Amino acid sequence: MHRVFCSRWVLPGLSLTAGVVIGASLTAAGDRRNNNREPSLLDRVPVIPIPSVDAASEISPYQPGQVSVNRSTATMKYGFPSLSNIKSRESYVTSYDPRNRTAAWVIEQLNAETVTGSSDRKYSEFKEDESVHVYHRSSNSDYKGSGFDRGHLAAAANHKWSQKAMDETFYLSNVSPQNPNLNQNAWNNLEKYCRSLTKHYQNVFVCTGPLYLPRQEADGKMYVKYQVLGKNHVAVPTHFFKVVILEKPRGDVELRSYVMPNMPVDEKIPLERFLVPIESIERASGLLFVPNIMKRTSSLKAITAG
Amino acid sequence: MHRVFCSRWVLPGLSLTAGVVIGASLTAAGDRRNNNREPSLLDRVPVIPIPSVDAASEISPYQPGQVSVNRSTATMKYGFPSLSNIKSRESYVTSYDPRNRTAAWVIEQLNAETVTGSSDRKYSEFKEDESVHVYHRSSNSDYKGSGFDRGHLAAAANHKWSQKAMDETFYLSNVSPQNPNLNQNAWNNLEKYCRSLTKHYQNVFVCTGPLYLPRQEADGKMYVKYQVLGKNHVAVPTHFFKVVILEKPRGDVELRSYVMPNMPVDEKIPLERFLVPIESIERASGLLFVPNIMKRTSSLKAITAG
Repeated sequence: MHRVFCSRWVLPGLSLTAGVVIGASLTAAGDRRNNNREPSLLDRVPVIPIPSVDAASEISPYQPGQVSVNRSTATMKYGFPSLSNIKSRESYVTSYDPRNRTAAWVIEQLNAETVTGSSDRKYSEFKEDESVHVYHRSSNSDYKGSGFDRGHLAAAANHKWSQKAMDETFYLSNVSPQNPNLNQNAWNNLEKYCRSLTKHYQNVFVCTGPLYLPRQEADGKMYVKYQVLGKNHVAVPTHFFKVVILEKPRGDVELRSYVMPNMPVDEKIPLERFLVPIESIERASGLLFVPNIMKRTSSLKAITAG
Repeated sequence: MHRVFCSRWVLPGLSLTAGVVIGASLTAAGDRRNNNREPSLLDRVPVIPIPSVDAASEISPYQPGQVSVNRSTATMKYGFPSLSNIKSRESYVTSYDPRNRTAAWVIEQLNAETVTGSSDRKYSEFKEDESVHVYHRSSNSDYKGSGFDRGHLAAAANHKWSQKAMDETFYLSNVSPQNPNLNQNAWNNLEKYCRSLTKHYQNVFVCTGPLYLPRQEADGKMYVKYQVLGKNHVAVPTHFFKVVILEKPRGDVELRSYVMPNMPVDEKIPLERFLVPIESIERASGLLFVPNIMKRTSSLKAITAG
């Protein structure tokens, strides 16, 4: 029954030729502490980011329209879609996916104040997120020459209110490989649209993340397939989602959820055409939005068609 | 720049033809609470499993060889490789990956007591894990006719000490689609080997999980590709890892880490040939083992060649 396959999988630091002599190409690392890697490296890096689980339950009763001093506490008003590797920053709260070397989701809270100000992206630069273990971190070199943009999940222009907040959107943990045409056109339009909603709603919560959707191949079976970039194998999502939670007067909440494919998208297609039922995103992403939102409102309207 | 692709991605509940008329095939769900799904469903299911984060820090000083009343507390002696969606059961502690509908990892603590007893798998049956949201849960029907076994991560035979403990290894959250030849031969031998180690070591901690490794395709680029099964799109791992933490006298710790491809493997190949450096598993899985282990011992020996 033993078959030998020619295709080669890559285990970082090793190549695995399927089913045969996996051990043969190994360097005998022996005592890990005696090898020539810096012994201080693992000590310096936080072992596992502790999710700020308590924060969600500690949130004080929220006043609609209040400007919170601690913005990230306010950002979590509608809970988190997961509790994995949570990081809280000035401009957003995010859950990191250490296997795919990018965020699983990023939530921001936008309002008229956050989207205006003098901050300028010319002062910001893309940088490694040193709070992520070096084994699971992406670097600028992974993107170089890849043909993909470093696509912001929390958009820089959403955070003109503070240069620090804008700078923090440039952590590569808030970035996914994104088709340049998509990034600069249709996706950019969706981001602009989210900002424009702050004119009509007191608070706009935006949750953005990658999707890795399956598709059927010629053999009739379903496969998830996505490229990985560079030395760190940064995952290229097949799609991106954006879930927009809109606060209306009297505590009513409106939900708009979008999916765009990670490829050129004609910006003439109306944004409404990219609306999908939130359930689709919840199923595909492994995240949950609605149960948390329902804890905060008795009136949720999900917009799934323009 | 707009291209139309013929290949179709599947967003559960929808089909996304790339870049075109994503919204067109939607049913207008309108007010989510008014549609015809059971409104009580989301209310019944725990929104987000709260990781038992505190447990790790509450663990009392560990006595080598002690039989802990709360086995799952003892199981976490060397920490968790991640803190996502942690579930603690009689026989193991696990972190669930809701996107791939299987565990990210499962840790068990074996010793001479756990691997002996009268429990029998004939009394156990594979069952859905109702603690996982129905959107992210796998079911027996996903496996039916797929050609893959329901492969235990925490092995049933490791938990002969208690029928309940053995039964709990049959939750589908402790199962991944596994090549039948692998499951019944080489992988089974690795599991037996782990049990045999309880004769020579006071405690054997075993952490098992799936890997989704990239490989280079004809275009020279690296891709992660894996099949997904059934209505729930249960991910078929490309490989499996097993990290074995062995306690020796005087607090010394020995580490053996294995990777096998999810395909037929000749059981004549010595198990030592599947040893890999732990760093390779840490990089590929997004998990961390060594930093936690180093908190508990000053002497770690990683065995990476037979």
